[in-house]
Amino acid sequence: MSYRAPVRDQMFVLREVLELDRYSNLPGFADASLDTVEQILTESARFCEEVLAPLNRVGDTEGCHWSGDFSVTTPKGFKDAYATMVAAGWPALGSATEFGGQGLPRVVNLAYSEMSSAANMAFSMYPGLTHGAYSAIVEGGSPEQKATYLPKLASGQWGGTMNLTEPQCGTDLGLLRSKATPQADGSYRITGEKIWISGGEHDLAENIVHLVLARIEGAPAGVRGISLFITPKFLPSADGGVGPRNEGVKCVGLEEKMGIHGNATCFMSYEDAQGWLIGEENAGLRLMFVMMNEARLGVGLQGLAQGEAAYQAACDFARERLQGRALSGPKNPDGPADPIIVHPDIRRMLMDSRAILEGGRAFLLWTGLQGDLMHESPDEAVRQRASDYMGLMTPVTKGFLTDKGFKICSDAMQVHGGSGFTEHFPASQYLRDVRISMIYEGTNGIQALDLVGRKLAANGGRAVFGFFGEIDAFAAAHAGDDGLAPFVEGLAGVKAQLQEATTWLMQNGLQNPEEAGAASTDYLHLFGLTALAYMWALMAKAALPKAADPDPFYADKLTTGRYFLDRILPDSASHLAKLKAGAKSMMALKAEAF
Amino acid sequence: MSYRAPVRDQMFVLREVLELDRYSNLPGFADASLDTVEQILTESARFCEEVLAPLNRVGDTEGCHWSGDFSVTTPKGFKDAYATMVAAGWPALGSATEFGGQGLPRVVNLAYSEMSSAANMAFSMYPGLTHGAYSAIVEGGSPEQKATYLPKLASGQWGGTMNLTEPQCGTDLGLLRSKATPQADGSYRITGEKIWISGGEHDLAENIVHLVLARIEGAPAGVRGISLFITPKFLPSADGGVGPRNEGVKCVGLEEKMGIHGNATCFMSYEDAQGWLIGEENAGLRLMFVMMNEARLGVGLQGLAQGEAAYQAACDFARERLQGRALSGPKNPDGPADPIIVHPDIRRMLMDSRAILEGGRAFLLWTGLQGDLMHESPDEAVRQRASDYMGLMTPVTKGFLTDKGFKICSDAMQVHGGSGFTEHFPASQYLRDVRISMIYEGTNGIQALDLVGRKLAANGGRAVFGFFGEIDAFAAAHAGDDGLAPFVEGLAGVKAQLQEATTWLMQNGLQNPEEAGAASTDYLHLFGLTALAYMWALMAKAALPKAADPDPFYADKLTTGRYFLDRILPDSASHLAKLKAGAKSMMALKAEAF
Repeated sequence: MSYRAPVRDQMFVLREVLELDRYSNLPGFADASLDTVEQILTESARFCEEVLAPLNRVGDTEGCHWSGDFSVTTPKGFKDAYATMVAAGWPALGSATEFGGQGLPRVVNLAYSEMSSAANMAFSMYPGLTHGAYSAIVEGGSPEQKATYLPKLASGQWGGTMNLTEPQCGTDLGLLRSKATPQADGSYRITGEKIWISGGEHDLAENIVHLVLARIEGAPAGVRGISLFITPKFLPSADGGVGPRNEGVKCVGLEEKMGIHGNATCFMSYEDAQGWLIGEENAGLRLMFVMMNEARLGVGLQGLAQGEAAYQAACDFARERLQGRALSGPKNPDGPADPIIVHPDIRRMLMDSRAILEGGRAFLLWTGLQGDLMHESPDEAVRQRASDYMGLMTPVTKGFLTDKGFKICSDAMQVHGGSGFTEHFPASQYLRDVRISMIYEGTNGIQALDLVGRKLAANGGRAVFGFFGEIDAFAAAHAGDDGLAPFVEGLAGVKAQLQEATTWLMQNGLQNPEEAGAASTDYLHLFGLTALAYMWALMAKAALPKAADPDPFYADKLTTGRYFLDRILPDSASHLAKLKAGAKSMMALKAEAF
Repeated sequence: MSYRAPVRDQMFVLREVLELDRYSNLPGFADASLDTVEQILTESARFCEEVLAPLNRVGDTEGCHWSGDFSVTTPKGFKDAYATMVAAGWPALGSATEFGGQGLPRVVNLAYSEMSSAANMAFSMYPGLTHGAYSAIVEGGSPEQKATYLPKLASGQWGGTMNLTEPQCGTDLGLLRSKATPQADGSYRITGEKIWISGGEHDLAENIVHLVLARIEGAPAGVRGISLFITPKFLPSADGGVGPRNEGVKCVGLEEKMGIHGNATCFMSYEDAQGWLIGEENAGLRLMFVMMNEARLGVGLQGLAQGEAAYQAACDFARERLQGRALSGPKNPDGPADPIIVHPDIRRMLMDSRAILEGGRAFLLWTGLQGDLMHESPDEAVRQRASDYMGLMTPVTKGFLTDKGFKICSDAMQVHGGSGFTEHFPASQYLRDVRISMIYEGTNGIQALDLVGRKLAANGGRAVFGFFGEIDAFAAAHAGDDGLAPFVEGLAGVKAQLQEATTWLMQNGLQNPEEAGAASTDYLHLFGLTALAYMWALMAKAALPKAADPDPFYADKLTTGRYFLDRILPDSASHLAKLKAGAKSMMALKAEAF
């Protein structure tokens, strides 16, 4: 069986955990009753399952092809699928109605994106980055730029990209060299080399809108001299259509990669390409980070999504493959052997995956909802808290869910045994594809540094202390609930560890930033475990009243939550011990010793 | 820079930790003074670095090719390298002098194998499996079989394979269907399909000796009816050369895999192929396990070796790639940025890898030495203990070192950032190649079951209690040593946890085997951590007197050991907590719920 979109589980989170109908006073939510949301997700699930998923293997096998005329051909079937997607309006779900979007809550769009990314990660990056470009122009574009580009990007009729990386300049954007020369007509000429540009050239959309970071001549060195430019492949015509080719924009080759072969990773050359400044001079990084933060949440989602798809494939294999007998006696006595799902170590891998995936899905949707509240709530305190949470949780979703997504894909391969290492089963592609999610849009190490170096300290720690307060309030409110007790205890325990780690960081990291750096990845994982423990407590609360339902969904949810407490949460103590060990032995060796 | 063989570190273990010269009374050791061993390793290191390593990428890119005439072509350069290797005598290092081998200690051969596997895993599998076939024939072959096959296998002039897996039968060998029909001349006709046969066909050696598991007509069902047959590609001629083709032996295709493309993974078809029984009827599994146990140690070694190669590539990248500035102030003030090795989170990954690799190398060589003692010691008590240890540690080396090897290769990719995901850097190949080591020769889940279900219980737990006793004695003997104190404390702590886990397993696993199964992987990892803590204590003891040497090797060794205590050993508590959580939530869901 191929990928089945987890609409039931998503609706459980949206309806019963997040109780989305509480927000019907907000713009977007008013038109999206939970029944409407369910219809939309059910319909889009069919598109993901029936159109995108069958193209996943094709994309991996065929890859993209570059021609001497600087064009790129995507794998067979991608173009039709893209046209179907645009016609159905799926890319426009979360875009504003004033730009032709459907204006649905961001959290609903996120649920759609999970399915789309799970069904076909390489394909879904094309509309995913397009939406990032859309958001950056919403944030910083002039009225004319918005009118020209946003409707086309919202619909997916035009694609979008982000152009940061250069050969000498990845994480350290201060090293950026691309140049922008002002022209008499107010436009600029952009010159530079960009690498690893996802969707930099393809045959899916009639135009591609590149957002390019470059330095205006005479700009200050470092990150304070970087501006952002709209540099389309085709210049927009006066009537809003596609005008002449922007001659200086060229894809000069494709990257060979371990995975996501269906997505064109381009070497881009800009030679006196025409571009228009977006936002203020030398303030390009802030706008790029609008795009980047959205992309980081989207990459966390990719980790979850590939994990879910790989987990499903592993479940299918484990139910069908017959090897050995259950330790508790034959479960398939008439067959030559039992299905391997009877074996505890197979269960361990499946339950590990399931507990992280279900908790991670709730975490992602909970975070997505903060994005809606931050923009749409009429209450300033709600907006502020939501904005705090978005800032705090973005690096956690990205780093934690992609590390775990990779682990889940590796476990899915392991469940397959030798079959998993062959390319006849999907496990290899999931593992190869998901691996990039730990790297791009800021490596997970950068996410961890962003968390401990920037997000924790912002506004005197307001975000993290707000989160602790919310957990304390939840624990206090449910102190007398016997059914919920193990979840409340687990949550309180890990939150106390996270608080201890936070205090340790504030004491040691401020004096010596290398202590903060040395602690950062363990801190991020401890944070992720705490967030998931909170999600599992919320889910258990929603499921407990229905534990005796004839539908086993709720009882199974509680069992999975207990497994999370039993078998995943114990990692928290190890993260705390490691980070408190400090930086000394980590930093002691000279560089030459390596 | 490409792979550098870690001869210095190997010699440290052999000379200063294991003190190999204590064993000069044993056969093989007598002719191998430590200086001779160092010469051999230095010379073979050159072969690995200069001949095998440059072919690693070629093997990955070109792969092996199957032709309609059932032949297989290996990647360009493999054939010459193989001939060079045979001429130099490298495959024969550890084989018996009576069969043309060099009769060196097994532990020395293991050190060579680490380098060879690190330089080119896919290539090194050809001689690796050949040596497995050699060992099975040493164990079970008739004098005539030994005379015919062993000299050719020892030298590598002929290749060897093991044929277990069939499409319906991987882990569960009881499902095996291949048939053997007795012939009047004492030989058999073998018929069946075998899959995933590494080196089943290639152009490197003049003959290939397949060891094939099959059922003699009328044999009992299940694993008690399986026999082992020598089924060569070419029948041996009367003079010991290559005779006519064994017509029924054919490679009918190659597997497409995620990695190890340079090794031919063959679909083998046996149709009335001529074969000769080796050992007793229906006792084939025991002989196959001679080969399998050797292979398992060799696979643990592959995890270590790929990890070392990937770690070296990551170190090179981290010293050269300039991004950002050190948190403690610029380290390369005249350059545009500092090398990324200054960043704590990069150090974390490198030090994690280094501490596991150096500890794992000692563990592997320590275990390899048990193989020598078990066969060569004149003292029965020594032989028995060594045999106990080999049985106990084989699944630990295989499961622990390959899980960690994969983690190290993934960290090495992460150090590379976006470059790591491209195929222009070696990280992707290491990650793709090493992944199979967690699967083949018994998945790591099977290793864990072997450990808890078979090895722990054997002889009333004699092996594990012997190990605990050895650790206790070490701790007692060094109780007053201040320099060693943190290592002794760390070791005693983790050993106490392992002992607690062992007691828990004996109490719960006997009553309910599913509890043992559910605990098995965490138990194996707790065991691996204990073994490495012991190795680090032994290494620290050897290094401490030289900590002030002008050569920083010993001081660096101690720092790395302290890092192990600080940042890796804390995982032990998490494994203990998880396994004591029991099987309940793991096994509660119905199969249909997945």
